[in-house]
Amino acid sequence: MANQPLILISNDDGITAKGIRHLVEWMQELGDVVVVAPDSPQSGMGHAITINDPLKCYKSDIFPGVEAYECSGTPADCIKLAKNYILNGRVPNLVVSGINHGSNASVSVLYSGTMSAAIEAGIEGMPAIGFSLCDYDREADFSHTYQWVKNIAIQALEKGIPQGTTLNVNLPARNKEEIKGVKTCRQAKAKWQENFDERVDPYGRKYLWLTGDFIYQDEGSDTDIWAIENNYISIVPVKYDMTAHQAISEMNEKWEI
Amino acid sequence: MANQPLILISNDDGITAKGIRHLVEWMQELGDVVVVAPDSPQSGMGHAITINDPLKCYKSDIFPGVEAYECSGTPADCIKLAKNYILNGRVPNLVVSGINHGSNASVSVLYSGTMSAAIEAGIEGMPAIGFSLCDYDREADFSHTYQWVKNIAIQALEKGIPQGTTLNVNLPARNKEEIKGVKTCRQAKAKWQENFDERVDPYGRKYLWLTGDFIYQDEGSDTDIWAIENNYISIVPVKYDMTAHQAISEMNEKWEI
Repeated sequence: MANQPLILISNDDGITAKGIRHLVEWMQELGDVVVVAPDSPQSGMGHAITINDPLKCYKSDIFPGVEAYECSGTPADCIKLAKNYILNGRVPNLVVSGINHGSNASVSVLYSGTMSAAIEAGIEGMPAIGFSLCDYDREADFSHTYQWVKNIAIQALEKGIPQGTTLNVNLPARNKEEIKGVKTCRQAKAKWQENFDERVDPYGRKYLWLTGDFIYQDEGSDTDIWAIENNYISIVPVKYDMTAHQAISEMNEKWEI
Repeated sequence: MANQPLILISNDDGITAKGIRHLVEWMQELGDVVVVAPDSPQSGMGHAITINDPLKCYKSDIFPGVEAYECSGTPADCIKLAKNYILNGRVPNLVVSGINHGSNASVSVLYSGTMSAAIEAGIEGMPAIGFSLCDYDREADFSHTYQWVKNIAIQALEKGIPQGTTLNVNLPARNKEEIKGVKTCRQAKAKWQENFDERVDPYGRKYLWLTGDFIYQDEGSDTDIWAIENNYISIVPVKYDMTAHQAISEMNEKWEI
């Protein structure tokens, strides 16, 4: 259909993940879909790009009737490949990434491959949304988010996304309650407290698994974590100018150099 | 020496790179140094962390008389390992990352492993600086930056770094002129325009190299790119709250959901 919006889809859990399969199915109700996604899981890849190795990118028939490509790189690579190698001048009306298996709220936005695909699209001037379900299970139930994800995409297509921003959307995991609604929020102050689980391989060499606990350091009720804990969907508009503008004058006053 | 500051050093070019060797040598003049750095190049890794694979972390004797560790992970992993596995309660007075071989000014901050090590330390509440030389050469000449890097580290130790920020310092490559001074700046608006160099492997399969041109989209003279082009050192205070606060009210007015 000629006048349908073009929707580009990526993720970080890889092209076979359940979350992206839902997104492809649901977005086909809103437009023409092109998928460019990693060929293997890329969780925690942050805004990594592949510069020390070559990339592979092949057509995939995993989604019947949908133009799809699987790539050896990171989520950010996938968006760069889509724009400069695959789409050949076609400009997406919307880029959606996910649905991630696991929360990308608060400081997790920095580590998130899902969000880096969306942010990469944002830098390119495309309206973009990263969707994450607050459930890390590979077999997580996404069905309760169907109407919400679709409505958020419709709003983005119809009303646009604020200039210079990308949306970080986190969806509560399925529970007894219905989702109460949507809150536009700020990123909660928090950090991860890591523990390293030390083991010994069959050859006697030590190795470690990175594990961690999420430490919540915020008391506000205007944060993404508050929204999710209260069964709302959180939307944080994220920007890629990382300058701490207020700190510039402080530096100029204090430092002597 | 008991009352010396403790300085933690990491990078993204790997523990054998020329840039980190200079940083280790120069920082030893200011305090006790511990090095935790990747065992292989990690350029472009952004804020990636290793969650799908185990990590290896071994003691290294590469720097005579200096406590050093080489790790299989990313720069952000190195800081997490330092804090939660290696330092054992010792708290660094300063964390320095680099000196990177290549610019991390403007939007490159998002892709930079050097800066992700520094930002990771910042999230942990440690004063942290990422240093980058605007010269990608493995054999780049760092000598003209010695006094500047040392003075910036001294200022950070004595005056501190604005709360909730991490410093992104870019140093002009050696040229005919002397460095003129230091400017505290904002991140310039710019993006990378990628090209994919398509090749065929000996087995007939296509592969691609990611290449790109830096597209400068800013006319301000208060940016990091302006400073570097005019032979100043740029310092951008960077924050890890990525919320576009002004966009929240715009979203609330426009969207109906």
